[in-house]
Amino acid sequence: MPLHDSALTILEAVRETSPLVQCLTNSVVTGLTANVLLAAGAAPAMVDITGEAGPFAALASGVLINLGTPQPEQREAAIEAATSARAAGTPWVLDPVAIGTLAHRTALAHRLVEMGPTVVRGNASEIIALLGQGGGGRGPETADDVDAALDAARAIATRHGAVVAVSGPIDAVVSADRITRVAGGSPMLTRITGGGCALGALTAAFVAAGRGSGHDPHTATAACHAVYSAAAELAAARSTGPGSFQPAFLDALDSVGAPDLGAVAITEAPA
Amino acid sequence: MPLHDSALTILEAVRETSPLVQCLTNSVVTGLTANVLLAAGAAPAMVDITGEAGPFAALASGVLINLGTPQPEQREAAIEAATSARAAGTPWVLDPVAIGTLAHRTALAHRLVEMGPTVVRGNASEIIALLGQGGGGRGPETADDVDAALDAARAIATRHGAVVAVSGPIDAVVSADRITRVAGGSPMLTRITGGGCALGALTAAFVAAGRGSGHDPHTATAACHAVYSAAAELAAARSTGPGSFQPAFLDALDSVGAPDLGAVAITEAPA
Amino acid sequence: MPLHDSALTILEAVRETSPLVQCLTNSVVTGLTANVLLAAGAAPAMVDITGEAGPFAALASGVLINLGTPQPEQREAAIEAATSARAAGTPWVLDPVAIGTLAHRTALAHRLVEMGPTVVRGNASEIIALLGQGGGGRGPETADDVDAALDAARAIATRHGAVVAVSGPIDAVVSADRITRVAGGSPMLTRITGGGCALGALTAAFVAAGRGSGHDPHTATAACHAVYSAAAELAAARSTGPGSFQPAFLDALDSVGAPDLGAVAITEAPA
Repeated sequence: MPLHDSALTILEAVRETSPLVQCLTNSVVTGLTANVLLAAGAAPAMVDITGEAGPFAALASGVLINLGTPQPEQREAAIEAATSARAAGTPWVLDPVAIGTLAHRTALAHRLVEMGPTVVRGNASEIIALLGQGGGGRGPETADDVDAALDAARAIATRHGAVVAVSGPIDAVVSADRITRVAGGSPMLTRITGGGCALGALTAAFVAAGRGSGHDPHTATAACHAVYSAAAELAAARSTGPGSFQPAFLDALDSVGAPDLGAVAITEAPA
Repeated sequence: MPLHDSALTILEAVRETSPLVQCLTNSVVTGLTANVLLAAGAAPAMVDITGEAGPFAALASGVLINLGTPQPEQREAAIEAATSARAAGTPWVLDPVAIGTLAHRTALAHRLVEMGPTVVRGNASEIIALLGQGGGGRGPETADDVDAALDAARAIATRHGAVVAVSGPIDAVVSADRITRVAGGSPMLTRITGGGCALGALTAAFVAAGRGSGHDPHTATAACHAVYSAAAELAAARSTGPGSFQPAFLDALDSVGAPDLGAVAITEAPA
Repeated sequence: MPLHDSALTILEAVRETSPLVQCLTNSVVTGLTANVLLAAGAAPAMVDITGEAGPFAALASGVLINLGTPQPEQREAAIEAATSARAAGTPWVLDPVAIGTLAHRTALAHRLVEMGPTVVRGNASEIIALLGQGGGGRGPETADDVDAALDAARAIATRHGAVVAVSGPIDAVVSADRITRVAGGSPMLTRITGGGCALGALTAAFVAAGRGSGHDPHTATAACHAVYSAAAELAAARSTGPGSFQPAFLDALDSVGAPDLGAVAITEAPA
């Protein structure tokens, strides 16, 4: 099935089955992340404390672990959730925010990637740093181009069996033997906080819903990026700045459909 | 006084006296909760650490304890705040978010309800779980209808002397001898994060302002739900999706008045 | 250079150099703070845990330490960040939210002010309490007028070599030998949560960008307040309540320019 069709099918599955996405995420973007999931039709649950994160990861449809503000309690809960997700077969997404030089998150990201995330999502600097190279970006901002991270993405995908999504003007979704590029979107997503973080959460929803509708994680991840790009383009056309972009983006995630998706350029190739 | 009139009187009292509402709430909805309180005319203060939560609860007009992301520090602070509110006679609201199977919050909710909250607010699954029955909902989402929770609500109201508000398409406000149903509102409130959590905080403001204007907590709680429903209807009519609904809802809380309240159906009956 | 010209120059420098502002701030306003920085052209990074806060403060362009919800971990990280900022010469802003009677934040604020912040920003009650006088405000709300805090502001400025910005209907930016008053703005900034907190973060961005363009911290702080006032006036004219004000304000920070700044009344005098 062409990816545009898969994207539409999985989007409909998200809306119909409302996958429950457990988020262990940073304190800056919790609200936007929950609202992005709700607008797209999924159900958020921010269960991120020890003693609850593990049991919940066994019940959730998908899990996001985002390292943006890794308090000590949340670091422990992240390991607990990843362990439980792995044991239960719950798909989970790792977002290694701003790793590279910051000690706690970098160590935790390296430990978590060894535990076999279904998907890793980050910007180019983060993906390079996750392989143990580079110095990381400028806080949550990238210092590298998407293409500069492709070798690292392929290496992580091959070593850990993960899908690796590198965000940028043209996103690259990379598996050991396959690469999908998703264009479109809007620079406005980088002018609001949490645009990338919420994409990680939505990816968990798409991978969960994709599994139910017979789509592999690579396809579901690319589908999610395509839907996100389409919604961002819609929102950019209807807003006048970064402030009005955010509500317009949530409205667009709620309403996005086939014609909008058709405008997103997607190319597929062997890796 | 008919409840529509009481609602208008208490709303005016909130706007005139600006009750100071201390919130110990979850990390996802802090911003929306504070903005809902401000838009309605109240004053938020998120004082949720040990050593500060107790002393502040003695000075605040009302307190909200919401268990959505109960970090260890916040769990201790919740007990401190409830103890102090009880001693000082400060009205307080308990919102047992997503209890049922999650260990820490469920244990804490059972402990807190024994301390005599003025109001308990939750969805049907949470109220059933608070009585020690049922398995809870799906994270913060309910798995039960409001009517299925009425017996549990009545039992909690009778045992603990609390007003129990069960949120749903038609909200039920339950005391030992009285039940008030508030219709209206908008499903959009379930498409943004924190719609229910912020209602719990606003209930604390209404109970505080109601006390000053001679209204019992049951009446003030029902009044708050009616104002919230009226504002949600206004906002739904002025928005195009969940993104634009949120700013429209805050604008509506700021402007809502007698004609809007008149459109909300309220019925009262003995329990 | 007249302050209006300096304000425009520093605003352009913020947009061109995108200063990286590390924020240790309260859990209620993290999202708005990051979005204000992004809308104005700066780059936020919420690095607020021990082991990361210190190293990052040496690399950041500026640091904000806001005491609104000072969890134990964040209190330690604040000392770590201030120590590192001081050693590295990174400008840093202290926002002593709601100090006065609340024990932990009041003690921490007194300790931090001794460490020599570049700027202190607060409302009148907070500035008075920082000098060790008064009982503080009503949670994050002030109980005092700006003029009532001028002596305290001058005393803090003189003793600690800091610029002290007192927020109110007319803001006062106070140094040992100089006072600048900035009018304009909108009462809507007090009807949303985080209006003042985000101003503290943006002040760090302006002081950092001002340094690069040859402006002292006093000028940069006053410039930031003028830009903020101009954006608030723009937004108030384009919104219909506190809900629509917030996205309009972010749009305005993105678009604000010379004509808008010209409408803000600024007066300068010796202290």
